Amino acid sequence: MAPIKLIIDTDPGVDDSMAILAAFNSPEVEVIGLTSIYGNVPTAMATRNALTLCHLAGRPDVPVVEGAHKSLRGAAKERIADFVHGRDGFGNTNPPLAQAAAAPGSAAEFIVGMAGRHPGQVVVLALAALTNVALALHLDPQLPEKLARVVVLGGAFHCNGNVNPAAEANIYGDPDAANVVLSRLPNCWMVGLDVTHQCLMTAGQIEGMAGRGRHGTFLRDITQFYLGYHRKVYGMEAVYVHDAAALAAVLDPTLFDWHAGGVLVVTDGPAKGRTIRDEGKKAWVGGNEWQGLPPVRVALGVRSERLVSLVLQRMMQ
Amino acid sequence: MAPIKLIIDTDPGVDDSMAILAAFNSPEVEVIGLTSIYGNVPTAMATRNALTLCHLAGRPDVPVVEGAHKSLRGAAKERIADFVHGRDGFGNTNPPLAQAAAAPGSAAEFIVGMAGRHPGQVVVLALAALTNVALALHLDPQLPEKLARVVVLGGAFHCNGNVNPAAEANIYGDPDAANVVLSRLPNCWMVGLDVTHQCLMTAGQIEGMAGRGRHGTFLRDITQFYLGYHRKVYGMEAVYVHDAAALAAVLDPTLFDWHAGGVLVVTDGPAKGRTIRDEGKKAWVGGNEWQGLPPVRVALGVRSERLVSLVLQRMMQ
Repeated sequence: MAPIKLIIDTDPGVDDSMAILAAFNSPEVEVIGLTSIYGNVPTAMATRNALTLCHLAGRPDVPVVEGAHKSLRGAAKERIADFVHGRDGFGNTNPPLAQAAAAPGSAAEFIVGMAGRHPGQVVVLALAALTNVALALHLDPQLPEKLARVVVLGGAFHCNGNVNPAAEANIYGDPDAANVVLSRLPNCWMVGLDVTHQCLMTAGQIEGMAGRGRHGTFLRDITQFYLGYHRKVYGMEAVYVHDAAALAAVLDPTLFDWHAGGVLVVTDGPAKGRTIRDEGKKAWVGGNEWQGLPPVRVALGVRSERLVSLVLQRMMQ
Repeated sequence: MAPIKLIIDTDPGVDDSMAILAAFNSPEVEVIGLTSIYGNVPTAMATRNALTLCHLAGRPDVPVVEGAHKSLRGAAKERIADFVHGRDGFGNTNPPLAQAAAAPGSAAEFIVGMAGRHPGQVVVLALAALTNVALALHLDPQLPEKLARVVVLGGAFHCNGNVNPAAEANIYGDPDAANVVLSRLPNCWMVGLDVTHQCLMTAGQIEGMAGRGRHGTFLRDITQFYLGYHRKVYGMEAVYVHDAAALAAVLDPTLFDWHAGGVLVVTDGPAKGRTIRDEGKKAWVGGNEWQGLPPVRVALGVRSERLVSLVLQRMMQ
């Protein structure tokens, strides 16, 4: 089977780095480009960090395309999670950054272009706010028929968010974009906190990466700050494997239990960013805003031990 | 132990009738009054139906006090669930209605008065929209210290609502009132769809009530329409025991697993009425609207078999 043509939309970010380096080590996928977006770091820094990760992986041939600097609705200042990933997105390790230039054009144009060139073959792994994917849908209304699949790291359905009790950070970053994506794509898969909060990498496993493979020491080092954050806010000696869990959903969807149903995102008020899915258990009386939404496959169960060992293996290769 | 002084705030309603008649048969509680509210039926009909239930129970001495006709914010037309309970609230059986008069004053004043007369002893069992309880809190800011407890039938936390995927009907009926109640009371307990959707009374159990005790045949008869609704929208030969499950939480709280945390209600937009609780698993970074909310005890697990047999026994006594 030909590998999946994968675009990673990303805001590196510690766990983005894990996912990207693991993706380069995964024969199931051919990484055809990285697109950058704000979230863990501002967009310009995400671009620079993505270029650096391609350089580290020995893949300077992979194009990095800069994405949106602001959410669809715009905000004076988007939320940047530097308290999770460090000011540099690499856990304040300040590694030497690649000096290569980003590819021309915008992330949204790149997604549209690749989907047009390889219809039915491109998968987008969206690891941050969904602004770039939503913009791509605005640029090309036929995009839903051309993209093979979008795998979204985001959402919190039956559990609390991580920004506040309602909202998970990526969806919170641009809830309007999330509604654009979730309402228009026929083949969207969501990996949210319901499952990523079951996927833990322990302090011992992090330390164990040192000296293993091309990237083990780098990944061990950048993860220390991220581990400190988890220690402080969750009181645990482990980190959540968010982004790499979403990569695992591309590599092996059977790691998860998927449940299909329309998903709506709250866009305003204190629950902004909350994702609510129709469980499909009731014939609703009267109209509601979930009716007519395409079924989104939401991961609600996960073989976490298998997932974490797959991810570790790919990171340390 | 002296029985709990219980005020039932209610919109009868088929399952309200179950709860009220079961309460009259329960030595753990002394029903000191019923207050009426819109929801399953309009408020005036709720008053008449409550008087009728007192009459049927041989308790015309129990005062029935009429409550609010509109939600706090007001609406041209409140949502009335006659498609669940029948136009008469008794499953379209149209039983003879009691002609007695309601007690003077408003439901909110009655709650304030009783709590003042019996400080620390009064429990309110709120079986519908929380408008009356919120109004009582507006009338008497010291009410939180005087009420022993409010047990709310309402909310959907880890599951879909029953109005739409977001909202449970009682909270949806007046989400602003719910926020007033949940933000001010130090001792509020919520019994929502997370547990009541585990408490089923089968068609066989409903039929089995006929001829048993003072009310068995009446309850069997009024429940037929309600059963037809469940058959149609949930595809099952059983009904959910909502209101009587909340009564059971008054009679025996050990039937449930309770989890304490601040609860916020979405008041606007498509997720209006969604209840979101802080699970208390994270030290939040930055402020959010759950901070400072009093802990609400939310039922998330239930011994449903024990609960249903308790309720059936009390109804058929």
